[in-house]
Amino acid sequence: LRDLALEAIQQAMNDARLGPNDIDILIVANALGVATTQQGHLGPLIADYAGLRGIESFTVESADASGGMALRQGMLAVASGAVRSVLVLGVEKMTDAIGAIRNSALSTTLDADYEAAMGATPAALAGLLMRRYMHEYGLELANFEGFSMNAHANASKNPLAMYRNTIKSGRFASAPMVSDPVNLFDSAPDGDGAAAVILTSTEDAADMVPKPVRIIGSAASTDTLAVSERDDMLFLQAVNTAAGRAYEQAGIDPSDIDVAELHDAFTVLTALQLEAAGFANRGEGWKLAAGGQLNPDGKLPISTFGGLKARGHALGATGVYQAAEVALQLQGRAGDNQIASASTGMTINLGGLGGSTVVHIFESGA
Amino acid sequence: LRDLALEAIQQAMNDARLGPNDIDILIVANALGVATTQQGHLGPLIADYAGLRGIESFTVESADASGGMALRQGMLAVASGAVRSVLVLGVEKMTDAIGAIRNSALSTTLDADYEAAMGATPAALAGLLMRRYMHEYGLELANFEGFSMNAHANASKNPLAMYRNTIKSGRFASAPMVSDPVNLFDSAPDGDGAAAVILTSTEDAADMVPKPVRIIGSAASTDTLAVSERDDMLFLQAVNTAAGRAYEQAGIDPSDIDVAELHDAFTVLTALQLEAAGFANRGEGWKLAAGGQLNPDGKLPISTFGGLKARGHALGATGVYQAAEVALQLQGRAGDNQIASASTGMTINLGGLGGSTVVHIFESGA
Repeated sequence: LRDLALEAIQQAMNDARLGPNDIDILIVANALGVATTQQGHLGPLIADYAGLRGIESFTVESADASGGMALRQGMLAVASGAVRSVLVLGVEKMTDAIGAIRNSALSTTLDADYEAAMGATPAALAGLLMRRYMHEYGLELANFEGFSMNAHANASKNPLAMYRNTIKSGRFASAPMVSDPVNLFDSAPDGDGAAAVILTSTEDAADMVPKPVRIIGSAASTDTLAVSERDDMLFLQAVNTAAGRAYEQAGIDPSDIDVAELHDAFTVLTALQLEAAGFANRGEGWKLAAGGQLNPDGKLPISTFGGLKARGHALGATGVYQAAEVALQLQGRAGDNQIASASTGMTINLGGLGGSTVVHIFESGA
Repeated sequence: LRDLALEAIQQAMNDARLGPNDIDILIVANALGVATTQQGHLGPLIADYAGLRGIESFTVESADASGGMALRQGMLAVASGAVRSVLVLGVEKMTDAIGAIRNSALSTTLDADYEAAMGATPAALAGLLMRRYMHEYGLELANFEGFSMNAHANASKNPLAMYRNTIKSGRFASAPMVSDPVNLFDSAPDGDGAAAVILTSTEDAADMVPKPVRIIGSAASTDTLAVSERDDMLFLQAVNTAAGRAYEQAGIDPSDIDVAELHDAFTVLTALQLEAAGFANRGEGWKLAAGGQLNPDGKLPISTFGGLKARGHALGATGVYQAAEVALQLQGRAGDNQIASASTGMTINLGGLGGSTVVHIFESGA
């Protein structure tokens, strides 16, 4: 875990040409360290290992929304004027846990008393959600293939992706079943990973990198952990609330977003995010994928480096990956994954089945 | 766990006369929820249970410094101007775990690879630290009795304390051994607990309570988790750094502090905090206790409601307890535990054996 963290921290600090004395706070986003590696209290551990001994550091946890939430706290810390630069690190080490231990680790993100105690896992709940969505809108599994085909096609060009194979049309629906109707090509693989970004004031950022990226919208909201307790399980209320606030802060509409990294842990979640964030009407989020509008040359490119589905889902790190990837897109540094003329980007990071939601909107500094 | 949280939240909201729509963020400080109750992702869980569904919420974790660290993040969020009111909740449910599970939960706050893997526990490391302190300064166990006698005497007047028995002089050193030389009367009991405080701007605070308390200093620092890796294991460098910054922000000296809540998990830690924070010369922190200067009528009253030692140590909640207790002292609302004429207070909250440190300085608003 500390090695993963170190690699991401060093790359971010080199990129911003910062030394150890230039960072005021290290925020660690991590979801399952205690459950998978028996290691909590990551702030001082990683700070010391990365040559930042003595720095202020702590962990933010919101299940797999930890990364986005840490980004938001870092932004608020800079905005307070009390600190200049914040290093936001997302890190997760899943592969130290296997089998039942890994499943029970993942289930700590659910309601322990009312969901996990009944044997529910995130995939099981996503299966129930997807079945309901298909029932309500008269869909079959193949209607969702566009999401995963796009993610894998993009990952095939990303050397840092977990899965670089592509998925051919027609193959999606016949993949091995995970939790009916969620299958292997439908659900994101959890895995090890780390990502880091550096936040500072607009003035200081101009000295660090040629083309800094500005956060112009930032909001978070929660919903019940237990999906069964929601008024309407097919509407992600927290996404709607947080996205609405972020649009308002940025003074833009969904149509102004050039590129987005959504939380594509399961295809039904992506469809529901598109609907709750105003990109599609209810019951029609899946059509954006089916019509190719989420592909790199579409109207709203998503999962541009492969997304959670194919770049890989390193739980607590995922929100920081999303921010780093959108920043690379807006800076024109996305290499083979570059989207043409992107100046406004968005990230939606979910915890569990939408119990936590963090939304950010970014603008190219050029 | 959610019941404990609810009780503290309701009392804090009633005290500030706030309704659910008056709170912008709920920050949850928790250290061991995953390890002791298989429940992570506490933000949305507790928000929903407390009638705050939809609110922004997340968990801050820094072992037993989680509470102080959450307080600091809440303060930065208010200072950013992006939010008005933040509810900081510390909550811990230890008693769901027993025996080996409880020990291994506590050890997740240590370095898993270099300390916990060797069988170390917090108490074992405190024993090594205390033995070294006694060796260096030529002390015996009885020299530390003043710390615990004061804590228990104060707890005897606090209806919310875990242990309300007093300790007679001379009995301390003969208590059953825990981890030589740390004995039962030397080490704080971990337990269940919750505490909550509400943070807002100076302007808004004046409308909420007759006598709000102002944070005039706030700083955090880290040290190696592994005690053996420190340059000098008898000097809490992170306490020295954070306290120094907090004094500077507040524009005061240690002699200006009227009341303090220190992290008295083990008496040797209290002695080391007094030394690192400038209240005593090195090797002389224990003398303040022996001389009665830490008692309610002394120069620097500490553990005024019983401290971790006798009020009880609810890991992630402890830093919020400390803040609430100092606030009550400065507001003159401490009842039988009231210190005479206290206008400036301090909290020092440690994670593990000082790997994390958070220091706050508070001033009476009157």
